[in-house]
Amino acid sequence: MSQYRLEVRVKPRPGLLDPQGKAIHHSLNSLGWDGVADVRVGKAIYIDLEAESAESAIAAAEEMCRKLLANPVTEDFAVALEQEAAAS
Amino acid sequence: MSQYRLEVRVKPRPGLLDPQGKAIHHSLNSLGWDGVADVRVGKAIYIDLEAESAESAIAAAEEMCRKLLANPVTEDFAVALEQEAAAS
Repeated sequence: MSQYRLEVRVKPRPGLLDPQGKAIHHSLNSLGWDGVADVRVGKAIYIDLEAESAESAIAAAEEMCRKLLANPVTEDFAVALEQEAAAS
Repeated sequence: MSQYRLEVRVKPRPGLLDPQGKAIHHSLNSLGWDGVADVRVGKAIYIDLEAESAESAIAAAEEMCRKLLANPVTEDFAVALEQEAAAS
């Protein structure tokens, strides 16, 4: 068993209303950033997890998303090992 | 001027209390995931931005984090072009 740090990103689906994103968009325009076309706000969830392998850690995190972390009707999610995410 | 999609991740600093993360951690344990050692919750903000170059888009997003999106006392942030983030 090894320790893995996973990054889960949960994002509102395209086309659905995102009031928090709209509020940030408006604030950015007010602060002088005119080039901002759209803002969407989701969650970034960092999970330290003990698992047999990186694959099983990612599979567990995807299951967590389906059961708890993401709303399957309104949100999409992506899971990555944080080392990989940090390299981007 | 081109259109860029940036992903900003805002994360509570290590050591600071994160009640939302604690609540998720507890829920995951209740659902049977015993291998979870820690959970931290931050924000993932997706910004569509018009800019001269990828570098200036990233610089603008970092400035947005310092002025509006992140609390400099309690949060760290990272900015990436979404194409790069999606590749991870």
